[in-house]
Amino acid sequence: MFDRIIEKIREKSPLVHCITNYVTVNDCANILLACGASPIMADDRLEVEEITSISNALVINIGTLNERTVDSMLAAGRKANELNHPVILDPVGAGASRLRTDTVKRLLSEVKFSVIRGNISEIKAVYNGSGNTKGVDADISDCVNEDNLSEVIQFAKSLSMRTGAVIVITGSTDIIADKDKANIVRNGHPMMSKISGTGCMLTSVIGAFCAANPADIMEASTAATCAMGICGELAYKRVVKDESGTSSLKVHLIDYMSKLDLKLLDEWARVKVR
Amino acid sequence: MFDRIIEKIREKSPLVHCITNYVTVNDCANILLACGASPIMADDRLEVEEITSISNALVINIGTLNERTVDSMLAAGRKANELNHPVILDPVGAGASRLRTDTVKRLLSEVKFSVIRGNISEIKAVYNGSGNTKGVDADISDCVNEDNLSEVIQFAKSLSMRTGAVIVITGSTDIIADKDKANIVRNGHPMMSKISGTGCMLTSVIGAFCAANPADIMEASTAATCAMGICGELAYKRVVKDESGTSSLKVHLIDYMSKLDLKLLDEWARVKVR
Amino acid sequence: MFDRIIEKIREKSPLVHCITNYVTVNDCANILLACGASPIMADDRLEVEEITSISNALVINIGTLNERTVDSMLAAGRKANELNHPVILDPVGAGASRLRTDTVKRLLSEVKFSVIRGNISEIKAVYNGSGNTKGVDADISDCVNEDNLSEVIQFAKSLSMRTGAVIVITGSTDIIADKDKANIVRNGHPMMSKISGTGCMLTSVIGAFCAANPADIMEASTAATCAMGICGELAYKRVVKDESGTSSLKVHLIDYMSKLDLKLLDEWARVKVR
Repeated sequence: MFDRIIEKIREKSPLVHCITNYVTVNDCANILLACGASPIMADDRLEVEEITSISNALVINIGTLNERTVDSMLAAGRKANELNHPVILDPVGAGASRLRTDTVKRLLSEVKFSVIRGNISEIKAVYNGSGNTKGVDADISDCVNEDNLSEVIQFAKSLSMRTGAVIVITGSTDIIADKDKANIVRNGHPMMSKISGTGCMLTSVIGAFCAANPADIMEASTAATCAMGICGELAYKRVVKDESGTSSLKVHLIDYMSKLDLKLLDEWARVKVR
Repeated sequence: MFDRIIEKIREKSPLVHCITNYVTVNDCANILLACGASPIMADDRLEVEEITSISNALVINIGTLNERTVDSMLAAGRKANELNHPVILDPVGAGASRLRTDTVKRLLSEVKFSVIRGNISEIKAVYNGSGNTKGVDADISDCVNEDNLSEVIQFAKSLSMRTGAVIVITGSTDIIADKDKANIVRNGHPMMSKISGTGCMLTSVIGAFCAANPADIMEASTAATCAMGICGELAYKRVVKDESGTSSLKVHLIDYMSKLDLKLLDEWARVKVR
Repeated sequence: MFDRIIEKIREKSPLVHCITNYVTVNDCANILLACGASPIMADDRLEVEEITSISNALVINIGTLNERTVDSMLAAGRKANELNHPVILDPVGAGASRLRTDTVKRLLSEVKFSVIRGNISEIKAVYNGSGNTKGVDADISDCVNEDNLSEVIQFAKSLSMRTGAVIVITGSTDIIADKDKANIVRNGHPMMSKISGTGCMLTSVIGAFCAANPADIMEASTAATCAMGICGELAYKRVVKDESGTSSLKVHLIDYMSKLDLKLLDEWARVKVR
């Protein structure tokens, strides 16, 4: 299913420029290398445009934003747009503070994003321009389940229509939507929510997959989401076998990403088109 | 012994706001998740009050402080006091530079702390408003041993009297003291000093335990200190068995925190009241 | 071969002040502890001179530089020079942006470095004052091989002559050169390039080895480069045995550094003098 997508990452070894938070930045760098890309983290206003210019995609993550880095995000985003590079947004904690919600608004008004990935609370805050996100985790009242899945898909499609971006909503069920269609991914394991950075890492991996496949953002984002989920499932199996815990889960997750091949991805991917 | 304490963390899954250093921030986030809490790291002046308001406790760690983040610490601390949230201070490297020592003084004069945790050199610098801390490790001349234990306990009690905070002094023997009494904890293993962040992680875990048990800061801090020490002991056993090393110790330590249950805590805790 | 060098690290347990990037800072702290040193990370202008004064070496890494930290690097560097402490430079991404290349120029003009460590693209950018570095990895056109090895050695010697620093160029073959001689190290494994931070970690370890052996910077840098390479080889063997992946490689690498002894280092080191 995803053969062309994976092949191109290995061929191109794309450089992915990340302006990201200092909490999970090391995991993002390592998972980018694991999936076959090359990371560069740079956030100073004086260099972000140059760094973006030599890169193949830009990932903007507002996890520990500040005034200085917000300016850099805007400048890098505009430059990436000029060069037609894929630009990915991770609106970490949007809805939890006015600064985060306003920064997202400003980014959306000045930069065209290829993909926006977040949990349902964050994506709702992006949609509404306000929210009541509980920190960086999805609010319990925002749970996506079988009853409201159709509704959430419709909402993702309409946000895609408005922004032009592919919308990726992650949780126990993942939704990847453009204005016309949605892919539903049912990979992953609940224990992944017990380690910091699974969301940030997925956003980075989407950056790598899109950098190598700029003409097929929807498929690249779906493949990345499946890849991450599958690595999480395999890592969980390992944790159970070894009777280890959450920190081992993270080590195994990145290990599996470094060993992921097409056969595994095609066999384990659970995708439905809606 | 600690049954109510642990139960409440699992029930409440408290949100812990950390303004902390960029060296060990990822470990702090992961150990907070491992012990059943939820981390949010945010340090911009424009959002720290809002983030503190949606959280259940605030952890201030001065490990890589700068002018920008010191202002945020003060603002967040005042807001947390207003809301009666537990506020925990980790005076990393107090005594090693005037900036650190002065920042601690300023924090103590403007914010009321529930807990202050550091090694003996740092706590002495907090007490004296000056010091000769060797970097971020305790100075050799500051060793706590059986001969001076009573003296150190008295010193901790009098710092608690002055600040109103529970004082946690960690080392080969850990002391948790309020103005009236002290708990002596003899868990942990010397190899824990060979990984970066055991102190920062304990401070974060104290934040989680206090967030869920704001009415019993002394017991919550003692339970957190035992929990961290026990996880270190178990991790060390695993390292010996596998003939691995210090990086594996950190992985196992967080693994054990994610599996810690009341039975283990009660069986392994070595606490004496003084 | 390296007996005196290793012995002195264990004896002195030197304090290494790092002004470094937030991507790999945790790995740098942990590998410093693993090799027997003590790390302190501090980058605020108001404290860097004091922190440098209590330390035994200074490591400057420009991986995520910004205006604020560049000033701190300059101030700390001058202070370390005044005190005759070893100062190590890691010009991460020099050549990838004007900010990085100019910062390196400014650092070289105001601070005397004991060691400069980078990949061949970065070291060329240091030499030329410009470059076309592809992100933080060596450009493919810059490969060091048997055909151009003599030429690269000559280039390293002449950069050493100009700067007074020992030049360490790392890649599949590592070159450690002063103006008169060069050591060629053939330890390490290609999989090390698939984890973030091997370069930064080596620079920190060089800092530790030089801090304990300030009178023999060339030998200390060579020993550190061998040590890192050997730990990478051992870690790779473990990854193959366990069928794990890149994240496990990093854990094992730091584990082996924490267990490195003189016997292992002397047995495994592959050094030739040129």
